[in-house]
Amino acid sequence: MAQHPVSPLAPAGLPALPVIAGLRFAAGCTGMRYKGRDDLMVAALDPGTTIAAVTTRNAMCSAPVEWCRAQAKHGRARAIVVNAGNANVFTGRDGMRAVEATARRTAGLLGCKPEEVFISSTGVIGMKLPVEKIVATLPALASSLATDGAERALRAIMTTDTFAKAAVRTARIGRTEVTIMGFCKGSGMIAPDMATMLGYVFTDAKLPAAALRSLLRETADRSFNCMSVDGDTSTSDTVLLAATGKAAHAPVRAASDPALKDFRAKLESLMIELAQLVARDGEGAQKFVTIKLSGAKTDASARKVALAIANSPLVKTAIAAGDANWGRVVMAIGKSGEPADRDRTSVKIGGVTIARRGDLVPGYDETPVAAHMAGRDILIEAEIGVGKGRATVWTCDLTHGYVDINGSYRS
Amino acid sequence: MAQHPVSPLAPAGLPALPVIAGLRFAAGCTGMRYKGRDDLMVAALDPGTTIAAVTTRNAMCSAPVEWCRAQAKHGRARAIVVNAGNANVFTGRDGMRAVEATARRTAGLLGCKPEEVFISSTGVIGMKLPVEKIVATLPALASSLATDGAERALRAIMTTDTFAKAAVRTARIGRTEVTIMGFCKGSGMIAPDMATMLGYVFTDAKLPAAALRSLLRETADRSFNCMSVDGDTSTSDTVLLAATGKAAHAPVRAASDPALKDFRAKLESLMIELAQLVARDGEGAQKFVTIKLSGAKTDASARKVALAIANSPLVKTAIAAGDANWGRVVMAIGKSGEPADRDRTSVKIGGVTIARRGDLVPGYDETPVAAHMAGRDILIEAEIGVGKGRATVWTCDLTHGYVDINGSYRS
Repeated sequence: MAQHPVSPLAPAGLPALPVIAGLRFAAGCTGMRYKGRDDLMVAALDPGTTIAAVTTRNAMCSAPVEWCRAQAKHGRARAIVVNAGNANVFTGRDGMRAVEATARRTAGLLGCKPEEVFISSTGVIGMKLPVEKIVATLPALASSLATDGAERALRAIMTTDTFAKAAVRTARIGRTEVTIMGFCKGSGMIAPDMATMLGYVFTDAKLPAAALRSLLRETADRSFNCMSVDGDTSTSDTVLLAATGKAAHAPVRAASDPALKDFRAKLESLMIELAQLVARDGEGAQKFVTIKLSGAKTDASARKVALAIANSPLVKTAIAAGDANWGRVVMAIGKSGEPADRDRTSVKIGGVTIARRGDLVPGYDETPVAAHMAGRDILIEAEIGVGKGRATVWTCDLTHGYVDINGSYRS
Repeated sequence: MAQHPVSPLAPAGLPALPVIAGLRFAAGCTGMRYKGRDDLMVAALDPGTTIAAVTTRNAMCSAPVEWCRAQAKHGRARAIVVNAGNANVFTGRDGMRAVEATARRTAGLLGCKPEEVFISSTGVIGMKLPVEKIVATLPALASSLATDGAERALRAIMTTDTFAKAAVRTARIGRTEVTIMGFCKGSGMIAPDMATMLGYVFTDAKLPAAALRSLLRETADRSFNCMSVDGDTSTSDTVLLAATGKAAHAPVRAASDPALKDFRAKLESLMIELAQLVARDGEGAQKFVTIKLSGAKTDASARKVALAIANSPLVKTAIAAGDANWGRVVMAIGKSGEPADRDRTSVKIGGVTIARRGDLVPGYDETPVAAHMAGRDILIEAEIGVGKGRATVWTCDLTHGYVDINGSYRS
């Protein structure tokens, strides 16, 4: 497998990763696919940790996704185990057997129930997971858990990612400061309508599982579900939100508690940052694209139209070439199948109005738009004239790099 | 604009194009965009010709599409005028004014009503159509109409096409032999749920417009609407079916007439050939891909699943690389949103069963599949285990050529 250069859209570096009370990490190498790098991580969570999950809507989902869905119902977690290199998808009954073996071994090592172990796998589809390699590696990880192990853990689960992705926030619940730290992996097979990748968000806040569930669903809809690299929804996408409950704030009973105002805002901002990092590491990406859609019937409709633009190969290849090809944006709006009024549709690129109410603006000068298209950060705005729905979606361009990467990587 | 090499999937050549009684062609150069080549064609149809149309479902459709839809209601045609180089889309009120001016001028020259002139435009979106150049060129075309002008006409409307596309059939209605001839253009912005491109099919059969409409809709659903290059539905797609009525067969009243059995079969076969020619000229295409989907809830659902596979960038880039990446086929089935049972899903490539009922077949040997993937014609079959619905869809791979072409062509 070829190593690909770091995306030009990568941030300067990882943020400093804080220690979160009640959370420890370890990583190691099973050797199942990669040589000379970690490919397995464990996050160990203290007793009392609550958890919520959002998972892919792909009907061919992996065995680990099925397992996480089932365990998320009771909302308690003591460990998260993630391997890279094999997705354990379409592996028949052996798939769930491998998940159960991993959960049992981890539970034995950490002194919890198998049902409190959450599992994800990322990598090749349709190959049997060599679970014995995971089981054999787990004891060394269990004995090396460390509160400062997050960076090594997050690097262990990368596949075609060209840079590590993490984000950190502090938030207040009442007068108490809590920390939120999240990391994720993903750069291809990335599409809307699910959690979009593997992502793990941790906090020391003390929150009931039902509140976590509600917060996660709501913020995922405005972050990971508004991002797409290639429109190809993975079979394995999972985002987990775990709260260790070590912070000493006043009790919170539900997601609607006003004390969560700041926490919710910070969580959403962190989730958006993570989602954007995935788009910035889109396979072959050379440009980061923000699409703001307004004037749709509803917010949900606006998101569909914005994603039709984001996923259009013609729009994405034009952006790759730095071509201010707004006609393709119009085409993509129209093909979305959502209500839109051509004769009330307007398009802006880089803040410049190009077309208004179904027609090119008189005296349109492409010069400033061409300059914008030559940059790394592209902004496309459209108003479609049938309502007040709006959405913002993030994506990247479609380049030769995407074709290269996906011809050489067996996902 | 760069000239691209002829697709390696092109047929050996054009079929011999027959003369059809009641039909004449002419072509010429307006100079609106291309230099030194024809960019305007007229098909003149004798009085008594009936016509039917299927057009794009893109909500941002062109002025010519709106015009054709309106005129197709009365079902009579005396001319078809098509220009290449400018799509007359998103051109405000000037768009329909240009269509009307073209229809008026053509009608004046041919002695018919403007409403009997059908018009299509293909090319750049959002630029005003220089209709005065069309109007100025029409008289020369009207005076050079010839029964053997089909080839020059079909070449005049090509844009990014790398080869000319036509198909011919003879069919019997009762004991009378009739001819069907069709041609089309298109190689990008090609997607399902509409007519998919510009296509014109002519016959000397004598058929009421209502019967033509029914035959066209039915055969378009099994041909053009089962083909996709990039999932990007054009704003201009139009297929017209015109019957000059010169053949001396017994009267036919409706599409359900048993006398049309052979005609319907030959028309469908011709439409499928044309649709496949478009996929074979997909921008940058190096491989022609057939996807056969069975076991869906309904035929319509099967088509959606097959198109999800056909439009998946990950599937298409794997095919480009000759990689037998069946896991991505599974992913695409799952992301389609249609009912499918993972544990009853099977996948074949090149006739070899790779996975059966949610699991890799024991002892799977990739050798024959890899050999198949190295070829030009790729066959992917999947059974998804929830019903009896089936569909066949045609597409091409996604290559560096697609990225190149769409970074250099302003569509």
